Amino acid sequence: MPKTDIARRVYNHAWKLDPICRSLLDTDFYKLLMLQMIWGLYPNVDATFSLINRNKSVLLADEIDEGELREQLDHARAIRFSKKEMIWLAGNTFYGRKQIFQPEFLNWLADFRLPEYELTKRGGQYELHFHGKWMETAMWEIPALAIINELRSRAAMRSLGPFALDVLYARAKAKVWAKVERLKMLPELKISDFGTRRRHSFLWQRWCVEALKEGIGDSFTGTSNVLLAMDTDLEALGTNAHELPMVLAALAKTDEELLQAPYRVLEDWQSYYGGNLLIVLPDAFGTETFLRNAPPWVADWTGFRPDSAPPIEGGERIMEFWRKHGKDPRDKLLIFSDGLDVETIENTYRHFEGKVRMAFGWGTNLTNDFENCAPTEVDGLKAISVVCKVSSANGRPAVKLSDNPEKATGDPAEIERYIKLFGAQNRVRRKVSV
Amino acid sequence: MPKTDIARRVYNHAWKLDPICRSLLDTDFYKLLMLQMIWGLYPNVDATFSLINRNKSVLLADEIDEGELREQLDHARAIRFSKKEMIWLAGNTFYGRKQIFQPEFLNWLADFRLPEYELTKRGGQYELHFHGKWMETAMWEIPALAIINELRSRAAMRSLGPFALDVLYARAKAKVWAKVERLKMLPELKISDFGTRRRHSFLWQRWCVEALKEGIGDSFTGTSNVLLAMDTDLEALGTNAHELPMVLAALAKTDEELLQAPYRVLEDWQSYYGGNLLIVLPDAFGTETFLRNAPPWVADWTGFRPDSAPPIEGGERIMEFWRKHGKDPRDKLLIFSDGLDVETIENTYRHFEGKVRMAFGWGTNLTNDFENCAPTEVDGLKAISVVCKVSSANGRPAVKLSDNPEKATGDPAEIERYIKLFGAQNRVRRKVSV
Repeated sequence: MPKTDIARRVYNHAWKLDPICRSLLDTDFYKLLMLQMIWGLYPNVDATFSLINRNKSVLLADEIDEGELREQLDHARAIRFSKKEMIWLAGNTFYGRKQIFQPEFLNWLADFRLPEYELTKRGGQYELHFHGKWMETAMWEIPALAIINELRSRAAMRSLGPFALDVLYARAKAKVWAKVERLKMLPELKISDFGTRRRHSFLWQRWCVEALKEGIGDSFTGTSNVLLAMDTDLEALGTNAHELPMVLAALAKTDEELLQAPYRVLEDWQSYYGGNLLIVLPDAFGTETFLRNAPPWVADWTGFRPDSAPPIEGGERIMEFWRKHGKDPRDKLLIFSDGLDVETIENTYRHFEGKVRMAFGWGTNLTNDFENCAPTEVDGLKAISVVCKVSSANGRPAVKLSDNPEKATGDPAEIERYIKLFGAQNRVRRKVSV
Repeated sequence: MPKTDIARRVYNHAWKLDPICRSLLDTDFYKLLMLQMIWGLYPNVDATFSLINRNKSVLLADEIDEGELREQLDHARAIRFSKKEMIWLAGNTFYGRKQIFQPEFLNWLADFRLPEYELTKRGGQYELHFHGKWMETAMWEIPALAIINELRSRAAMRSLGPFALDVLYARAKAKVWAKVERLKMLPELKISDFGTRRRHSFLWQRWCVEALKEGIGDSFTGTSNVLLAMDTDLEALGTNAHELPMVLAALAKTDEELLQAPYRVLEDWQSYYGGNLLIVLPDAFGTETFLRNAPPWVADWTGFRPDSAPPIEGGERIMEFWRKHGKDPRDKLLIFSDGLDVETIENTYRHFEGKVRMAFGWGTNLTNDFENCAPTEVDGLKAISVVCKVSSANGRPAVKLSDNPEKATGDPAEIERYIKLFGAQNRVRRKVSV
């Protein structure tokens, strides 16, 4: 048997493109849940999504070749859901519910393709916008981010020889496994992979998911990545995101409508979903105001996902809200998903143990932690805080305030207007590293 | 292009044997240097080599299947030097010397094959003996040990699934690389791989050698493994071993001859080799006595390899010897090779820096350190102290005293006789872990 498979070697070296996004299911599950609702309730709303690199000192346009970026974005646009994928979406049980996707929605989805993109360079950064119908542009968020992040890792790794790459991945694996071993010590832990958007690469995310599956067993509840969920028989997890209140707020015609937008979103949501999918994301315009103005039925929802407040303070505040409404937090669920690493997970877990049900959605520090892994430090392998956010809806600017002013997005004047209206109580500035 | 190469998969799963020893060059270089001398001076001496497992609590015969062991030993016996290997031995420069091997010796070597073995089980251990001409049995030492050690690793790894194996090797690589990074801090370090006999596996030794080559560059002076030296264009390193004084001592007819045996070996050696190959191995019957009785010309030799005394005390004692004979230790070489790990290397290096030339021959802790690497601890991956020593010559028992009574080998009564004759000054009992 020859040592080298000549055909494979030639094929490997003659690759035109190594696609980063190979399936429309290679996205976060919440995008599909939201999409069905947007398709049903807001089919005519336009929404623009825009790339935002919060690490200004990292010049993405210098690190990533524009030609390569276009090729990857073009390739993603050429993908359709495959027959097998459509059958799986229709036949699989999500969150304990059969046929969560309506046949009419799936019919529409079968022909879905990602819409056009607008790419320019300015000041060493890419300006990347997706204009069009909300129910089309929304689907760009995850592939756009995954493409940007993986192209950046690939560029960074070009300086490494085969041995250095071997050491890099060996160390990264050893590092993930050391984290897994720490998590194993938390007996009631429920944790899932939320790391698609910022992953080092698709293959690396898959390895991390396999490591959690192998290492912590039942404590690993699933992955937000729909493709990985399908391929590895895991639960696909996730509920809703800031784009819902952001768009509804942008569309509001009066201040009253704007103040009501966060609750309107919840009404919309529960017209589609129930049970464990009833998770409130309270921080789009500040959790404090959200809780103060919330109608009592918000306390009936299954849980909250505090996404920008410090986890312990943020969680305590929500438990206070539940108690005020006569709910026992032990029947309720808190989902933590903001900038988690093992230490935050351990501290949060120990703080809330026995007081409330908890789940963790672990992102960037799971799927893109390569610090001190290369034999000689490679800057481009350090994860950055890059997001793809809705920037306008029907031509009106969209804004997120967040509990952490560092995570606010939108036009500064518009942010001021929102702050005047919603207030800025209990917002805490925390460094956003990932 | 199909994802699975069916032919290769079938081949991989239908393997009759995955040979551990695939070349007669997969041995330590000093065996070839010694062999030429034995072939030239002692062609008619019989010598028996025997396996000795110093870790009595590890029951090798329970861990390693006898059928597999026989298959591997039989396979090793079927190997001959290939044409390419013979040409390389003849054409390569070793220790700066061309044609270090005489054409007549190479002619004889071209037909060499390993002699028969005698294998039985007793009390959970293997009794493995190689009887016959010294110039044939001597060549079993390294392949026999490499086979025993790799069969033991393979057996231990049978309990591990594909993911556990991935984690195992990732962590082992990360561990070796962490050691490499510490060694990088020692600017004048000269270190080589002496880890063939106790290696985890051949492929792992090759990885370790590549790691040192990549990581510390010129500080990595070569490998004792002749095959790896040839394949990776490294220097093949090593000089002589205890078997020489042990056999000559065993053959001694009088006490006077026995006392002179260690110096007789050196005379034999310098009739064949010079320069950097003039390295004294002083501890076969105790370094103290060796130095006290040594003729002055021993101080003219290039260096010493203290192999069982604690490195700092042992090295100091030898420097004292050189000074007494009017030699400046800075012109002399100490080669440390006993049970080294990074910490011993660092301490020894720092102690002797600027006082003497130093080189390190790094063995088991380089090529077989898998502690805490498996996801769940696997006992069989812990390296053991197993050796293959000459046990008799022309029917007379062979003995090693060593500076560490734990490393003594031979019949207890005979050891007593040697101790009476050579004395037991400065012998220090130290735990032998590898």
